[in-house]
Amino acid sequence: MPKTNKNSKAVVKPLMAKSAKAQSAPRPIKGSKPAPAKPALKPAAPSPKTVIQKPGPAPADDAPVIALNLPAAKLNPSMAAYFKKCQDKLGFVPNVLLAYAFDMVKLEAFVAMYNDLMLGESGLSKLEREMIAVAVSSQNRCYYCLTAHGAAVRQYSGNPLLGEHMVMNYRVARLNRRQRAMLDFAVKLTASPWSVEEADRERLRRAGFTDRDIWDISAVAGFFNMSNRVASATDMRPNMVYHGQAR
Amino acid sequence: MPKTNKNSKAVVKPLMAKSAKAQSAPRPIKGSKPAPAKPALKPAAPSPKTVIQKPGPAPADDAPVIALNLPAAKLNPSMAAYFKKCQDKLGFVPNVLLAYAFDMVKLEAFVAMYNDLMLGESGLSKLEREMIAVAVSSQNRCYYCLTAHGAAVRQYSGNPLLGEHMVMNYRVARLNRRQRAMLDFAVKLTASPWSVEEADRERLRRAGFTDRDIWDISAVAGFFNMSNRVASATDMRPNMVYHGQAR
Amino acid sequence: MPKTNKNSKAVVKPLMAKSAKAQSAPRPIKGSKPAPAKPALKPAAPSPKTVIQKPGPAPADDAPVIALNLPAAKLNPSMAAYFKKCQDKLGFVPNVLLAYAFDMVKLEAFVAMYNDLMLGESGLSKLEREMIAVAVSSQNRCYYCLTAHGAAVRQYSGNPLLGEHMVMNYRVARLNRRQRAMLDFAVKLTASPWSVEEADRERLRRAGFTDRDIWDISAVAGFFNMSNRVASATDMRPNMVYHGQAR
Amino acid sequence: MPKTNKNSKAVVKPLMAKSAKAQSAPRPIKGSKPAPAKPALKPAAPSPKTVIQKPGPAPADDAPVIALNLPAAKLNPSMAAYFKKCQDKLGFVPNVLLAYAFDMVKLEAFVAMYNDLMLGESGLSKLEREMIAVAVSSQNRCYYCLTAHGAAVRQYSGNPLLGEHMVMNYRVARLNRRQRAMLDFAVKLTASPWSVEEADRERLRRAGFTDRDIWDISAVAGFFNMSNRVASATDMRPNMVYHGQAR
Amino acid sequence: MPKTNKNSKAVVKPLMAKSAKAQSAPRPIKGSKPAPAKPALKPAAPSPKTVIQKPGPAPADDAPVIALNLPAAKLNPSMAAYFKKCQDKLGFVPNVLLAYAFDMVKLEAFVAMYNDLMLGESGLSKLEREMIAVAVSSQNRCYYCLTAHGAAVRQYSGNPLLGEHMVMNYRVARLNRRQRAMLDFAVKLTASPWSVEEADRERLRRAGFTDRDIWDISAVAGFFNMSNRVASATDMRPNMVYHGQAR
Amino acid sequence: MPKTNKNSKAVVKPLMAKSAKAQSAPRPIKGSKPAPAKPALKPAAPSPKTVIQKPGPAPADDAPVIALNLPAAKLNPSMAAYFKKCQDKLGFVPNVLLAYAFDMVKLEAFVAMYNDLMLGESGLSKLEREMIAVAVSSQNRCYYCLTAHGAAVRQYSGNPLLGEHMVMNYRVARLNRRQRAMLDFAVKLTASPWSVEEADRERLRRAGFTDRDIWDISAVAGFFNMSNRVASATDMRPNMVYHGQAR
Repeated sequence: MPKTNKNSKAVVKPLMAKSAKAQSAPRPIKGSKPAPAKPALKPAAPSPKTVIQKPGPAPADDAPVIALNLPAAKLNPSMAAYFKKCQDKLGFVPNVLLAYAFDMVKLEAFVAMYNDLMLGESGLSKLEREMIAVAVSSQNRCYYCLTAHGAAVRQYSGNPLLGEHMVMNYRVARLNRRQRAMLDFAVKLTASPWSVEEADRERLRRAGFTDRDIWDISAVAGFFNMSNRVASATDMRPNMVYHGQAR
Repeated sequence: MPKTNKNSKAVVKPLMAKSAKAQSAPRPIKGSKPAPAKPALKPAAPSPKTVIQKPGPAPADDAPVIALNLPAAKLNPSMAAYFKKCQDKLGFVPNVLLAYAFDMVKLEAFVAMYNDLMLGESGLSKLEREMIAVAVSSQNRCYYCLTAHGAAVRQYSGNPLLGEHMVMNYRVARLNRRQRAMLDFAVKLTASPWSVEEADRERLRRAGFTDRDIWDISAVAGFFNMSNRVASATDMRPNMVYHGQAR
Repeated sequence: MPKTNKNSKAVVKPLMAKSAKAQSAPRPIKGSKPAPAKPALKPAAPSPKTVIQKPGPAPADDAPVIALNLPAAKLNPSMAAYFKKCQDKLGFVPNVLLAYAFDMVKLEAFVAMYNDLMLGESGLSKLEREMIAVAVSSQNRCYYCLTAHGAAVRQYSGNPLLGEHMVMNYRVARLNRRQRAMLDFAVKLTASPWSVEEADRERLRRAGFTDRDIWDISAVAGFFNMSNRVASATDMRPNMVYHGQAR
Repeated sequence: MPKTNKNSKAVVKPLMAKSAKAQSAPRPIKGSKPAPAKPALKPAAPSPKTVIQKPGPAPADDAPVIALNLPAAKLNPSMAAYFKKCQDKLGFVPNVLLAYAFDMVKLEAFVAMYNDLMLGESGLSKLEREMIAVAVSSQNRCYYCLTAHGAAVRQYSGNPLLGEHMVMNYRVARLNRRQRAMLDFAVKLTASPWSVEEADRERLRRAGFTDRDIWDISAVAGFFNMSNRVASATDMRPNMVYHGQAR
Repeated sequence: MPKTNKNSKAVVKPLMAKSAKAQSAPRPIKGSKPAPAKPALKPAAPSPKTVIQKPGPAPADDAPVIALNLPAAKLNPSMAAYFKKCQDKLGFVPNVLLAYAFDMVKLEAFVAMYNDLMLGESGLSKLEREMIAVAVSSQNRCYYCLTAHGAAVRQYSGNPLLGEHMVMNYRVARLNRRQRAMLDFAVKLTASPWSVEEADRERLRRAGFTDRDIWDISAVAGFFNMSNRVASATDMRPNMVYHGQAR
Repeated sequence: MPKTNKNSKAVVKPLMAKSAKAQSAPRPIKGSKPAPAKPALKPAAPSPKTVIQKPGPAPADDAPVIALNLPAAKLNPSMAAYFKKCQDKLGFVPNVLLAYAFDMVKLEAFVAMYNDLMLGESGLSKLEREMIAVAVSSQNRCYYCLTAHGAAVRQYSGNPLLGEHMVMNYRVARLNRRQRAMLDFAVKLTASPWSVEEADRERLRRAGFTDRDIWDISAVAGFFNMSNRVASATDMRPNMVYHGQAR
């Protein structure tokens, strides 16, 4: 793959764009564990099958990160720099990156596509892209993505309820016509892709979207239909810190 | 309806049984964070890039409580006492009660059934009944019940994550065999009631449930299949305070 | 629960309002058995697994009433009076009451809610409420409710076919616009409650329903989504007498 | 098509095999009308849009027989004889025959296939074939077939409840293993034909069915998946007399 | 069944009307095998379980024709003539005929209905009827019918892509309004027959169809809902020659 | 993005690995058009709405490539080289690349992920990955992917029927246990990702797959759940040449 300044820059953009200085010293919510100093797909001690019954400290829900035994590879320089950037800006490395870190080619391909889609130039705001991510993940009932991107919706919007709406049933959110049309399209595309036709695209155009915007809505919805399935197939667990963010 | 001491007592039991004295000066249950001195749904710093409705205090999501114009009736003495009890113990009156308060007969019937099912004697713990409530409501994507009873699962368990698991996909929770069987039954009963048969009851018995327990699982699952639909049909909105409880 | 004259009266209203004098000496349809003199959840003799092949008297389909072993409790005075009222007016005690009779609190709560919803004041006629009951139960394929409430539709309407339409596919009934809108709403609320929105309520208003009517449609549909599931979960069997009523 | 004695005989077999002498003077159920002397697809007087509200004689539900304007053709001698046979033996001509009577080739093809499948030689009893017909029609919610073949199940079995079970939810019938396996196969084949595989055929074989029986189960289930759709597509109405038969 | 010249003629019409002279010497696609000289339900050598891994000649996919052990009966003269006609005109006997050939009554009934529906007089062109066949079979994911009738669409239309569209997703075909309305109706009737109502018929009328055309659309859609299920239930295999036809 | 030799090499691997020398002078199937000398998202002449009725040359189905108006960007050197490679090896540039060619970052991210997943190192053969691609695309009824990857299955396997099986219903293919388990997992992950659990992964392990293989199955299934949706959302059209390949 060619080296491009543009791409190189993309790499150093964090997966979660927002400065998380407030989070650099995260309030110690129970059950959170400090992000590992170096990427480790699995903790030393195996996670016991938890019997939930009595109050007590929340078990470490995200260890191991996935239910597949895939030893972490050595990070290449580019990915090492990227993980450091995540650590510095977010205070942790998102578990999805640890999950992909068994193979540098796969990790880089995922990061490149993710960063372009969610953080690159678009007629959709970053919040709107995160709203699509969560509404799609709700249709697919994906624990990882609902948690990580639900937190992102809360952060970007400054409205904790909007995150809950996207997680639970996007139809209860009091959205403007544009955003409602956007989510209706994304969720229909998720539930019955074969039934999406010109009339659906026309509805988006009438709500003010350009053809490029329609591509972006489709690409983000498509991307989370992929990620939801990789996460569900591997029982991927979100970093515990997400749960308490921006409530 | 006959007056029974038992029933009369039921009336004064709060809808959310747990003492919420805590919430004026909350007892430190795990994972809860102290209730803010004054309600502050949002962080100090406004989040940039918000296209939706601009940063600022989150809009009052729960006004009106329902999308039907049904003027509140005068509370009868029993219900007035009950609402006062809620206010004293929880710090608020659950919106579902306000929704039913246009008619005292309906309100009392709802309260009687609810309190018996969720707070009365049972082989199921209160937490287990709330877990059923949320898993069923997730299947039905009911905003009101996911919010109010998701908070209850967090409170009863002292495990904020368990609430999220029930909301998002109960299959990701690391449950013991008993609780997994219980939720599998409740969700199957929700999704395809016609397909529940003796083999399903036998599975519950093998997981340690008595016939009375099976009734209770069924009755709680049934009740939330009712409540989910009343809530969705009327666009019922949960009290805003639930969102931040026991995180 | 408070004593109210209103409620006390509700208790003495029969579960099936219509006078069934004609049925006091029911025509002897094959397989019917006389209602038991006193409530008994189970017959002395166990019901054999029936091999259906040759014509002959229909086996006793409704013994035991449910597939759970829950010994009947002693009826309290109020419920004893209510059961006597059923026996006098209907000629039998509906099996759903026998099913709940293992616990007086549960029985009273069920009766109070049922009687208010199905027999109390409403902008919906009693027939309309029964039509909702059956259309919902058809969606959920609930044997108990289709049988008992199918009979009620036949009785209230004096039109045996209308009962069959509700049981088989409500769309084949030649309904006026009001009743069709009512059933479309109830069945959508049953099949995909998450998708019910303001446009659905507006459709009911345009068909002539008030906001209070919309509550009642929702509450009746919700109630049968509960009852269908309790009945299916417990394999509840309708009294045999229903099958032949009002044909 | 070749003339065969076998086939010619098939023609004179009635669509509903059972002698209906008892029905030659049918008890006057409300709304029934005498079968027309000669086949007529539509009555002289158009059927008004019925507003159902008050008790009264049931409206003529089965006129017109279908919602398509297809003038009856002149019966050819074979079909005229067949209709006469129906009239003599059943007391009426089944409406499905009137529906097909606009075209003699279609009518004869339908009659030939129907009579072979439902009345010809088979390892399945006629009752079992009717049970399949109704269980399939219940899955497809077909008013015509549920009514006509529900009556047939009641007649053949002498057990009115069995007919109701098949109409409402075949899983509630207390069937032997053979018949349960048969209906499970037929309903799976109806709901998701693509998922039927060798394991499903093996289950039938283990329940005692021969390969020829499996063909017959499949062919009957297939036939009603056709008929259900022709009936639903044309709003075909069953003869009113079916509703009261063999209750 | 009466002998009619009309019917006799129908018998000699081939199942696949189009002259297939071009195919009399079919280009040797990999895996095709010559049609058997005389109808044989099973080959001498049993078909091994194929492990697909390496390129090589395609295994004989269509032996045995079905997964049921049903020995072929002796063809009666009419059917023997019909099979010969198929052999002469098509170069092979369609496997569905071999599948039915264990019983002459069933074979004749199938042939009579098939030939009338697909080749008889109709306001629908033969291509349109085949388009319905394939769109319905796609909904039901029926391998036999998709293969055999996909080939027919390619042949009748002279447009190989149209066959692929019907197999994969009929919505991607650039159809005129008439044909789109026709397929929308047929597929809705397949997926949810209970929901087809007058509004659906009206949509066909507005697209230019007569009531007789609506019958034919329904009957063809119904027929393939039958055939799809007989084929899936028996694992019926299409003649290998279809795969390469009219590409 | 960092420059890595590995990645650079990935770029020069063609999207369709197999040498297509035979196709360098493709047999002139009806309707095919030569691949454009330089990437052009749209042809000069607009595509008319095609009325399909009479045999004749197949219309150009793949112009425009997508239903969004997104002008092609100038290819950067790396992508220009990649397109040239496609042209040289395959004889055409796959339309999906033309569709993404409005933006070099998106195009490169797509190519990098695709080439790694489908052509990189894996315990799954390339054929197996293509089989997953088609089985998933069949579940989602995606015209583009069924066509392009159906051709790939035919090519890699040398078995035209296997491609048809994957397109129509993968359950009819006579697969070994390993490949059947692989496709069952991929299709379940597609249809109900929320229901995939440890038992599903265990089934793959018992069929001989390593944890790394399970990742790859999941990642390929996930990728096509993305691509199917981007293709359906944009009405992406496959190159006409695919239809005739390897029949």
